[in-house]
Amino acid sequence: MSVGELFNPGSIALVGATDKSGWSISTLANLRAHGFPGPVHLVNSRGGVVHGQPAHRSLTEIPERVDLAYVMVPTAAVLGVLREGAKLGIRCYVILTAGFGESGEEGARLEAEIAAFAVENGLTILGPNGNGFINAAAGVTPYGLPIPPPLLRGAVGVVLQSGALASSVLGFAQARNVGISLLTSMGNETVVTVTDVIDYLVDDPATKVIALFLETIRNPAEFSRVARRALEAGKPIVALKIGRSKLASHTAQAHTGALVGDDDVIDAALRQLGVIRVRSLEDLIITAGLLASTGPLPGRRVGVVTPSGGASEIIADRAEDEGLELPPFAPETVAKLAEIVPSFGTVQNPLDVTGYVLIDRTLLGRALEAVTADPGIDLIMLLSEPPKVAPPDPAPVLATYAASAGRIASSPVPVVVVSNVLTDVTEFGRRVQAETGFPYVAGGIEHGLHAIGAAVRWSEQRSRVLSRAAPPPRAVAPPEGASGVWAEHRAAALLAAAGLPVVPSELAADEPAAVAAAERFGYPVVLKAAAEGLGHKSDVGGVRLGLSEAEQVRRAYREVVAAVPSLDGVLVQPQRGGGIELLVGVVRDPAWGLTLAVGLGGVWVEVLRDTALRVLPVDAGEVRTALAELRGAALLNGLRGSEPADLDAVADVVARVAAFAESLGDGLESLEINPLLVSGSRVEALDALITWR
Amino acid sequence: MSVGELFNPGSIALVGATDKSGWSISTLANLRAHGFPGPVHLVNSRGGVVHGQPAHRSLTEIPERVDLAYVMVPTAAVLGVLREGAKLGIRCYVILTAGFGESGEEGARLEAEIAAFAVENGLTILGPNGNGFINAAAGVTPYGLPIPPPLLRGAVGVVLQSGALASSVLGFAQARNVGISLLTSMGNETVVTVTDVIDYLVDDPATKVIALFLETIRNPAEFSRVARRALEAGKPIVALKIGRSKLASHTAQAHTGALVGDDDVIDAALRQLGVIRVRSLEDLIITAGLLASTGPLPGRRVGVVTPSGGASEIIADRAEDEGLELPPFAPETVAKLAEIVPSFGTVQNPLDVTGYVLIDRTLLGRALEAVTADPGIDLIMLLSEPPKVAPPDPAPVLATYAASAGRIASSPVPVVVVSNVLTDVTEFGRRVQAETGFPYVAGGIEHGLHAIGAAVRWSEQRSRVLSRAAPPPRAVAPPEGASGVWAEHRAAALLAAAGLPVVPSELAADEPAAVAAAERFGYPVVLKAAAEGLGHKSDVGGVRLGLSEAEQVRRAYREVVAAVPSLDGVLVQPQRGGGIELLVGVVRDPAWGLTLAVGLGGVWVEVLRDTALRVLPVDAGEVRTALAELRGAALLNGLRGSEPADLDAVADVVARVAAFAESLGDGLESLEINPLLVSGSRVEALDALITWR
Repeated sequence: MSVGELFNPGSIALVGATDKSGWSISTLANLRAHGFPGPVHLVNSRGGVVHGQPAHRSLTEIPERVDLAYVMVPTAAVLGVLREGAKLGIRCYVILTAGFGESGEEGARLEAEIAAFAVENGLTILGPNGNGFINAAAGVTPYGLPIPPPLLRGAVGVVLQSGALASSVLGFAQARNVGISLLTSMGNETVVTVTDVIDYLVDDPATKVIALFLETIRNPAEFSRVARRALEAGKPIVALKIGRSKLASHTAQAHTGALVGDDDVIDAALRQLGVIRVRSLEDLIITAGLLASTGPLPGRRVGVVTPSGGASEIIADRAEDEGLELPPFAPETVAKLAEIVPSFGTVQNPLDVTGYVLIDRTLLGRALEAVTADPGIDLIMLLSEPPKVAPPDPAPVLATYAASAGRIASSPVPVVVVSNVLTDVTEFGRRVQAETGFPYVAGGIEHGLHAIGAAVRWSEQRSRVLSRAAPPPRAVAPPEGASGVWAEHRAAALLAAAGLPVVPSELAADEPAAVAAAERFGYPVVLKAAAEGLGHKSDVGGVRLGLSEAEQVRRAYREVVAAVPSLDGVLVQPQRGGGIELLVGVVRDPAWGLTLAVGLGGVWVEVLRDTALRVLPVDAGEVRTALAELRGAALLNGLRGSEPADLDAVADVVARVAAFAESLGDGLESLEINPLLVSGSRVEALDALITWR
Repeated sequence: MSVGELFNPGSIALVGATDKSGWSISTLANLRAHGFPGPVHLVNSRGGVVHGQPAHRSLTEIPERVDLAYVMVPTAAVLGVLREGAKLGIRCYVILTAGFGESGEEGARLEAEIAAFAVENGLTILGPNGNGFINAAAGVTPYGLPIPPPLLRGAVGVVLQSGALASSVLGFAQARNVGISLLTSMGNETVVTVTDVIDYLVDDPATKVIALFLETIRNPAEFSRVARRALEAGKPIVALKIGRSKLASHTAQAHTGALVGDDDVIDAALRQLGVIRVRSLEDLIITAGLLASTGPLPGRRVGVVTPSGGASEIIADRAEDEGLELPPFAPETVAKLAEIVPSFGTVQNPLDVTGYVLIDRTLLGRALEAVTADPGIDLIMLLSEPPKVAPPDPAPVLATYAASAGRIASSPVPVVVVSNVLTDVTEFGRRVQAETGFPYVAGGIEHGLHAIGAAVRWSEQRSRVLSRAAPPPRAVAPPEGASGVWAEHRAAALLAAAGLPVVPSELAADEPAAVAAAERFGYPVVLKAAAEGLGHKSDVGGVRLGLSEAEQVRRAYREVVAAVPSLDGVLVQPQRGGGIELLVGVVRDPAWGLTLAVGLGGVWVEVLRDTALRVLPVDAGEVRTALAELRGAALLNGLRGSEPADLDAVADVVARVAAFAESLGDGLESLEINPLLVSGSRVEALDALITWR
């Protein structure tokens, strides 16, 4: 398989071309309109004239070498075309035809045949049930729907698990003046998958940013691999991944356990991989366009330059939503600005240079120059945009924007241009940008600030991820014949054996043994039922707390034995007091594998579902980041005079628990420590439960 | 003052008209271009020819009656123009000139003079420091900045506390094909205020929806009054109110107390008033446009009809964000759709009728018709939009959209049309809408669903607010000479005297009295220091809990006396156990007055700031709504087998606390009950604190 060959053919055959098909008409029109230099052959089993040019009856009749066959024949005829093509040495195919896996069992059988034939013969196939691709960089556009002109070439590679949305994405990119390198509409991904295309885009010199519309991540391991490659190459991935809704998540919870909904795991995984997740098509393109234009943004401290007080205040609100800082300008900047901004204006960040810009056209530019020199600013947000309509004499406008463009280009920090509201970049706007070098305009304060925030977070996450060495592969040593649910007495012993801190515990078989154990630990103690397969001990009366003398221990022993049938014995433990209770769970997500959930115990988990998730492996640094995400994080830092948790110690233990879970191998379904008690730097598991597959 | 006269003059004089001013040029051009039928007189103190027509030297020279003077003279000359105009009987003015209150003390003095003169002479003045207004409905456009054609007339009234944003709002409304009735740029609001204009718009037959950009709400009482009028008239108010950021909120907390930031109060107040708060200019216009087009939406159950699977799934995610429901279609709808949707599609809500729409242009319309008849659907979201570019023969396209428009118009439930992405409605798109009656298109799934959600919530909130009778005015009976901080023993006594449930309590002056009180209550008891001005008793060792015998009471008495100097005595109370602790606070917001904060005690308030706010007055129904907003609301419903709180009983007590706080009159600064203990239907204040102004 060669995706590179697929996207860069020198000659194309349209198989099943017919005047009756809109797809056929569009595909040929696209190839002709957008500069495909090579020959395009038409194949129609009846021959004759199609789209005004003579058609061949079969691929065999074409006298020249064909690099790519674009297949539109009926479903049942597709495999025959591949057989004929393979014989002729045609290696690459786009299959537009539908009626395969998406339409039922018979289609799925046909699709499996195609897949097998492709593997056998080394064919590269995009689709079936996809509209093809637009390689704008190379001017190769075998694509079955109309491409509204102009097709803007640029640095954003777009991969879509949707046919219908491609037109919207193309239209919106055009409205934002965002050029694309390659756009693919994936179809059923029978042979070429999303990750294959991402892999190609990571190596494609025309592509700087990758934009994805994803319905599903079919192969998380492969997705992780290509996402890591993109991160290493400095090419941001922006993704609109659907399936956030409760309906989707409920379905997912059924197969991943109570604490984790599939989409939460995907969300965690995407963050860990440095993939920017957005929730709208607008943010997808605006964010990708920004990153293609500015590259990574160096920090959170934003200097804002605007000609409008109202806009400044909207920006102040939205910047905070995005976690951006608008620090005060340095004294020297304030001094410079005081000479530039009219006396009725106020010199502050965000800066409103006032409506006087309408009279003095140099005002905004001079203010921008002053702010670019500020030492405390990482990047600048400039509120501006090219005009919509050409004035009778465009020369002065072009000169003004050329001057701005020069100032922006020479700025020592990145300048991101944002417009007030999200309206189309018009034809004249595109002309201004093309002729003057005026940069990309992120569309509207709302989406523009979201894009800036995302770009800043991507840069931070990239350094974080790349600075972490990939952890060594773990020895896999599951206990012999482990199965079912291991209650505390076996689970905790396994944890302790692995060197994890677990509260001391003795299994007592009768009352005297329980009292003896209690006296060894010292009072008060706790008694807990130890029984195979027993999940929530306390719900069935299997736990007795605060036992402070032998008689209480004896009574408690009898009560526990009475409450819980088929006991293995009763666990005796010293009672711990104070501290903060955490819950640490590792569950196996069917797609992403073992996933860590860490949260504060009790109501925090039960009412607020306040857990942070990470796909394994994780190191202690990543666990610290996860702990900081908790809404109750302030509790760990010591609230109202309580002892602050030693976060390094906590993160160390949690990371070791995660590593331990991984070491248990494929047989592990879940491992839960609830609570993990934290008192300052003492971190200790008070209870544990392991479920095997 | 008459705002109606201001916005509907029969003749206008531009005072200070000059060829050198862009404002002057624009204002006259606007009046000429947008159909002002009356005479426009130019006044320039030097006379001569201005803008190609002869100018008068003063208002006095104008031979006809002038209804509105648009004033652009230098700051110092403004008052003179008003004096001259008043003498001539000119009652209405727009003052564009700046340099007043916004520029310092001298300007503020001049502005005060203008205000006084206006009041004295009954003048209606818009501005100063504002660009004027656009009465699109009447074709009266004395407005100082260019109005890009076409000026679309419609049902949205726009009021802006910003000059610079008016152009963005106009441009965006045009891009959405949203027509306006009136747009005003308020300036300094010296005479005519935002609420005056809202008042006018509530009565204006051309206006169905009011859109606001607010930097500040100057007069909350007046704002509440006009918001209520708008609600009664069925005219939704959509507001972008800035100042959400932490910076703004920190400043606000300094004057409202720890639990309440100014913006949180504003947010609560706007919700109580049924005002739709949005966070972007895009949502402002898209939401207003939707409400102007569909009117109130009847319910949350949305049927979704689209030609795209990818879009359907984005919609499913976003609908959930907005609290909308996508219920399954009724069996009869499913049966009908099964005959319409191609066999490779799936009949479900959201419905994807498949890309087959490209071949069968009637598909979407027939599916829509089937869904409109579904009995379980309150409204329909149809994914569609007019084409951007006119085909060579537009007739078939126009016919298709006319057919759709007919189907939509005859639907028994509202049909909201939404486009995939937010791109401009083009000139041809506007033509399609105008000629075929195809309805408003909410721009893009992201903003469109936000608008639908907002419109549904508005309808619900409207019925809720209007169904509540305004509460009777309260008797104001503050205690004589109350001042400073009233600690528990005085605060609780006042609450108890008002008939509110307070834990029984005795003030003991010595050890024997404390023991006697304890034995009357029965053990265990609590001892608390009673001292004037003592806020957090427990922090200074002034509280002893769980005292179960006389000797413990005596020791505790001595400890409390030793810990807290200048005691009034020691409070003895029965110790309560179990239950859920609430915090109920009433604090005085400097703008909105007494404001209720209710939340769960402990970490919920301290870590999560999980409180719900309401501006007083509130009734028990509103308190129940507030309790349901708490993130920890599940705790009140009985978690893990604990006793559920009797929410009616809780709401009743909290509403009575609020009413009691109001009855304490203007001297009350704050009243805090912490905790209010809830055990089933027993609701009891365990501690209270009152601060007087």
